Order: sequence, then structure tokens, then C-alpha cells
Amino acid sequence: MLEKKFISTIRKYSLINPKENVLVALSGGPDSVTLLYLLLKLKDKLKVNVFAAHLNHMLRGEESDRDEEFVRKLCNEWNVTLFVERRNVKEISKGKNVEAIARKERYDFLRKTLKEIGGGKIATGHTASDLVETVLLNLTKGTGIRGLRGFLPKSGNVIRPLIEITRKEIEEYTKKEKLPYVIDSSNYDKSFERNLIRLDVIPVLKKINPSLESAFLKTCETLRLLEDFLNKEVETVIHAWTEKDEIKIPLQTFKSLHPFLRREAVQKAFEQISGRKLSFKNLLDIEKLADAEGYKEIHLGSGFKAVKEDNTIKIRKEQEKPKSFSFKVTKIPTTLHTPLYTLHFAENEGEPLLPITQFKEKGITVRNRKPGDKVNLGKFHKPLKKLLMEKKIPPTLRWQIPIITSGEEIIYIPDVFKAYIKGKPFVGVKVEKRETEKTDS
Amino acid sequence: MLEKKFISTIRKYSLINPKENVLVALSGGPDSVTLLYLLLKLKDKLKVNVFAAHLNHMLRGEESDRDEEFVRKLCNEWNVTLFVERRNVKEISKGKNVEAIARKERYDFLRKTLKEIGGGKIATGHTASDLVETVLLNLTKGTGIRGLRGFLPKSGNVIRPLIEITRKEIEEYTKKEKLPYVIDSSNYDKSFERNLIRLDVIPVLKKINPSLESAFLKTCETLRLLEDFLNKEVETVIHAWTEKDEIKIPLQTFKSLHPFLRREAVQKAFEQISGRKLSFKNLLDIEKLADAEGYKEIHLGSGFKAVKEDNTIKIRKEQEKPKSFSFKVTKIPTTLHTPLYTLHFAENEGEPLLPITQFKEKGITVRNRKPGDKVNLGKFHKPLKKLLMEKKIPPTLRWQIPIITSGEEIIYIPDVFKAYIKGKPFVGVKVEKRETEKTDS
Repeated sequence: MLEKKFISTIRKYSLINPKENVLVALSGGPDSVTLLYLLLKLKDKLKVNVFAAHLNHMLRGEESDRDEEFVRKLCNEWNVTLFVERRNVKEISKGKNVEAIARKERYDFLRKTLKEIGGGKIATGHTASDLVETVLLNLTKGTGIRGLRGFLPKSGNVIRPLIEITRKEIEEYTKKEKLPYVIDSSNYDKSFERNLIRLDVIPVLKKINPSLESAFLKTCETLRLLEDFLNKEVETVIHAWTEKDEIKIPLQTFKSLHPFLRREAVQKAFEQISGRKLSFKNLLDIEKLADAEGYKEIHLGSGFKAVKEDNTIKIRKEQEKPKSFSFKVTKIPTTLHTPLYTLHFAENEGEPLLPITQFKEKGITVRNRKPGDKVNLGKFHKPLKKLLMEKKIPPTLRWQIPIITSGEEIIYIPDVFKAYIKGKPFVGVKVEKRETEKTDS
Repeated sequence: MLEKKFISTIRKYSLINPKENVLVALSGGPDSVTLLYLLLKLKDKLKVNVFAAHLNHMLRGEESDRDEEFVRKLCNEWNVTLFVERRNVKEISKGKNVEAIARKERYDFLRKTLKEIGGGKIATGHTASDLVETVLLNLTKGTGIRGLRGFLPKSGNVIRPLIEITRKEIEEYTKKEKLPYVIDSSNYDKSFERNLIRLDVIPVLKKINPSLESAFLKTCETLRLLEDFLNKEVETVIHAWTEKDEIKIPLQTFKSLHPFLRREAVQKAFEQISGRKLSFKNLLDIEKLADAEGYKEIHLGSGFKAVKEDNTIKIRKEQEKPKSFSFKVTKIPTTLHTPLYTLHFAENEGEPLLPITQFKEKGITVRNRKPGDKVNLGKFHKPLKKLLMEKKIPPTLRWQIPIITSGEEIIYIPDVFKAYIKGKPFVGVKVEKRETEKTDS
């Protein structure tokens, strides 16, 4: 019965290809011993080469060494090539997040060993009972679809052939087949969250439904199928959005998507360009962006921002501050190229800037803005930043717009500010937009 | 704090419209008392008319009467119109499924009362803590998205304004506001599954995550959004499939759909035409149908079947057996109209049926098949049903095809069977397909 189920799981999820190596992650506990035993017993039927690997995490003192000794003896008796390594997890982790580090070290060791035997699959002893624990633990801490469906029968080259077999079935089988195993005493330590779930929660739920594992298996299978469907929907949607390291979503598309799909798609697209995740608040802020009037940008943290411009939502890296510039004009006529504009200075031509006498005395400096810049509005001074915001100059342009000054005074900013009232002879400026410069490309 | 949360939930889910009646389902316990109190306190702000209704289920003897007495007194003091009814649930349910019947009776009473006050909303005291219990209970018994997201803040005219408030918050609030309430002693009866979850499971999970309710609320909110997305996807897909009481899915569409969406869509479409649900096995069988060669049909139970024909999957009611027919031919030439074919009988013309002498003696009878019909293959008899299957005559046609007999013997079936070897003079038949008759329209 158990053997049949084992084979059916392997077939159902295509866990193993014929002639493949299977490396069993062997702790020495009943699950991994049963896994190794089943693979050896069905080796010819499944056409696989079976290996075992044991990492001594050195977390339980003598008990850890006893386990290592046990698996060495077992593999010797069962005639299985065993790889063993010792890593002092407590030392590596410095006491922090011991469980997570142990897991990381273990998989690192397993992957390294798999390479040594020429590739194949890593098989772990996770059972249906482990799946129930994992799902309940995730749900308790708050989770989405991924957490609710728990671990997978196959992820990459890691396979879990016992995923449809319960702990009780394993117990009965080890008894029937007289399999030896060791017990990890930390399984009873209730300072581990998982043990609380296993020892105190699941027995109560089993009073309600003795076939708890089978109920969870069904739910998880539906959720895996759902997750696959959603992934494909999301891929279809974001395919057209991402360009190297930028996301561009036409506003119309953005608004027409169902909020669920939209959030999933924005999240996935962001992961692709940044390798990071957006917070839930980030996602809500980006949604609000779509309703903003005109240009708007928000900072997403970790060096990224979302921008609404040209009927498009764009997500990209924050731009480094553009290079600062400063040009001194001492004679006219002069033509000056700044990032956004070309400026032609001449006598009595164009927009009047200042009397020629003052120009001769103090000259003109054209530069980008500096923090603290203020403009003189006659009765009071206004921070330049505020003025630029009022004039709706996009933040990306604020550091590039040319500020024309004389002495300490700001006398002219194209499209934004004009101080001088005409009176000849004056120095004037003709302003020409440089169309070739695009800031968002 | 709690009042703010209460209003924010009402706004967030648009639970109540201004000037609406709100009928509180008042058990007398802390949740429903708090709900009534909050609605009364915020009556002007929310612009609502508050009513209360209490069903005495007569399940807990004197305690039930004490509760009725309590809510009568409370509503009198608080100046609220209260509707009370007594229904003997134990008697109605005859001891079976008491909880479900109690619920049904309660909602029936609430809906009836709502009508009496001229419509509005029914407000129940379900809290975030109830939501956690419901989700855990559903998960334990095996469930899908709908079970995992638990009850809704609003479904039809039933609203749950306390859905984001925990039992602990209610307790603190009742203490602070000195609200009176009664305790339902059956809340501690561990023969109720829900009580097992509340008393024995949740306290353990709270050791792992003290903000358990808030974690569940977030998960449920995501799942509600997901469910809405899926519903809309399914609606889009099945829109083109259903015609009155039949589903027609082009095979190409059927195969191109993601299995998850396909199952959801088939299920929903079936519900629309039948008001029933397909079993998981039904769904798998329908999927297999898509790969069948030629015509195939399967029975879905409850009078429905799924058919593969003409590159289409069709789901419809099982056809009643077509009317039986039987014509006696005693003179030739004769023309006969049967459901599928028109038959011209004449001397020495068409397909030979039998010697003219035998015709004169026994005549010819044309009829539809009867159970037990056999054809004479010389060396042995074969069941007609078997022959029709071998000849791949679709089951829908098997009862309509004309069986030409003489005496007890089947002598001819168009496209299927021919007994007589030529020899003049004979009675022959010319067969003409009646194109106007379609069996699947």
C-alpha cells in the first residue's frame, strides 16, 4: 500500500527520470530512513542510482554524533554510498536564526554533493504531515497563496516523494519492515514553533477530521494549480511591460486590470528588475499614482521610484543627481549649451535680464540649482524648490534647469521666473529647448 | 479606537447606506450586544435606524429563556424596537444537524423580520476571532478558496461590521463601557468542533503569533480579491458556452484553457444549467473526454451527460428515449418515413431484403430497436446493441435507427446489417437519409 502510493507520487509528479542519481538527505529519522529504504527496494523498478548524504549540524552535542554514527552504520549495512560532512551551525550562525542557517548549510552541502556525483535529484523525507504543519505555521504567521500551498512535490532538483504519505503510515511501515532509526530529541522542544503545531494543534484538529492530511493534500493541490494559473496570467500581462531595468505600464492597461492581477503583476515585474519585493504600502501607493493629475513620482525605497508621466506608470531606479554645471558669461554675444536649453546672450535682444552696466560690473553665471536657492519676489523671498514645484517642473528636471544669476541674485529661469523690467540698454537671452535631451530614456 | 475601527470597516466595505434600517441579530452575548451598542451610539453619524431581533432556539432550556428575558430588558432600556420569536429547533431538526437547522431557522426569522420593517441590512456580530475559527475549521475539513477566505464583510443584505475587531477588543470594550451581556454555556461544550478550535487550537497559535487575527484578516482579504478576480475570469470564459440548458465548449477552447480555469469554468457553467455541482471525478472524466476519438459520452448523474462530438464538448440533460415507432409494410411499392431515414420499398429494386414469396407470407415490419434484439450472423446470434456499438452508431441514434424485420427475424438495418443474398424476385429497399432531422439540436 505504502509502496504503491510512493511509486504513484513519483509518477504523478514526474519526480525521477530513469537512470538518474537520487541523493537522499538522510538525517537518520524514520522519514528519511523509510525514504532511503523505499528507493533501494524499488531501485530496479524505478531505474535509479541511490546515494545518501548526512550533514552533522553539531547542534545537539553527543546526540548529533550518535546520529552520524547511526547513518554511517546503516549505509554500510545497506550498501549505499554515503557522504558525510560536519558543519558547526551554532558557530556559523552566531546564535542568530539557527534553524534558517542550518537549513541553508544543509542545502548547500546537498547541492555540493549532488554535483560531486554528477547531478540528479536531491530527495528529502518531507511527509504529508510535514505539509500540514508547514501550511498551519504559514497561515498562523500570515501568508498568501504560496504559503497556503506549502512545499512542492518538486522544486528545481529537490524532490519530496513522501509528500502524500502520513507520519502514521511511516510509523506503521517502519514497524512492519523492522526499520531502525534515531529520534531527534529536539522534536519535542516546544520552543520550536513547528513542534507546538505538531504536538499541541494537530492532535486537536485530528479529533475533528482524522483524515487531516488528506484534506490538506487536496487543498494544496488545488492551490498549486491555481498558483500555476496565476503565474501564467501574470507572465502574459507583464511580458510587454519590462525593458531591461525599467517597467512601463500604459495607464489604460493599468486601470483595466483587475486589482488582484494588477498587484501580482506589478510585484512580479518589480522583482524582475530589482530582485526585491514591494511592500503592500508600495503597491497601494502605486495604485494611487494612477489617479494623480499630471506628473507625479513616489519613492519606493531601495533606490527605486514609481513615476506617473505621459499616461504611463513607470518604475525605475532613482536617477543619480545629474552632473552640476556652472558657466560664467563675461562678454556678449555668447551662446551657451546647458542640459535642457541653449541660451543666446546678446545686447538688447531676447528676454531682458539686467542692465548692461550691472552685467559689466558683476557678470552673469548660469548654473544648476543649489539647495537653499531663493528667488526675490520683491516683498519676500521664496524657496526656489517651492517655486519649481508650483510651476510643475518635474523633479527629474529640477536639477537640470538653468538658473541665471548675477552676483548672489537669481535673475531668470526659463519658463519659471523673470526678475527684470525692461529698460535699455540691457543684456537679453534667447532660450531654445534642446529637443535631443530626454531625461527619462 | 474600537469605534474608529468599526466606522472604518463600515466605510471600507460600504456596509450601510444612509437612512437604511439595520436589524441587529441579537443573541445577548458580548459580540451582538457590543454591535447593537455601537450602532446606537453612532446612529446619527451613520444615519441609520436601528432594530434588533432575537430568535429563541429553545435549545438550552432555562438558559434560552434567560437570554430572551435579557435581550427584552436590554432593548427596553436602550429604547430599541425588538422582534422576538421562539422556534423549537430540536423538534424541527428531529435531532439531526441541529446547528445547521438552527442557523437556517435564525436566518429565516431575520429575513422575515427585515421584510416587516421595510428592508435594509441584517447585521451579525461575527468578529475577526470568529473568522479565524471559521477558516481553521474549513481548512481542517478540506476546502478551496471560498472556505479559506471565510465569511464576507457583506453578503447580500447580511453585513458583519465587527469582522475586523477581535474578541479581546470586544471584551475590553464591554468592560470599559460597562455593557451587560449573557454567556452561552454551550460555548464551552467541546463536542462542538468550533469550540475545540477556539479553546484548544487558537491559544496555541497565539503563542506563535499574538496578532493571529490580523494575520488571518490580511490573508482573507487577499483571497477575497483573488476570488473576485477568478469569478470574473470564469464569467468571461463561460459567457459564450451556455445556451439555456446546454453547455457547448469548442474542443480547441477547452484544450487551450489552463486546467485550473477550465475546471472552475466547467463547474460554474454546470451550476448555471443544472443548479447542481459536479464531483471532482466528473471534472476529471470530462477532461478525459476531450482526448477521446470520435463520438463519446459519459453520464454525470442527476440526469445529465457530457458528450464529445463534432469537435465540441457538450453537457446537457440525458435525452428521454425517443418515441417508439413500428410500421407494417404489406404491399409494394411503399414509401415510409422513419425518424432518420426515408425508406422506399419496391420489387427488384434497391437493396434486396427478402424473397417476394416470404414477403407475401410474413410481410415486413419497420420499427425501432427493442432491448434484447439479436441479429442472426449465420453461425451465431449477436446482441444488436453490441453490433451498433461496433459500427460506432452514437447512443443518441441507436434508438432511432430503423430495424427492418420479417417475422421474428431482423433482415436489414441501414449502414449496419444486411442478411439476404440476392435472388429474384425480391423485395428491395432504397434508403434515403433525412437531413432535416438533427438529434443534437
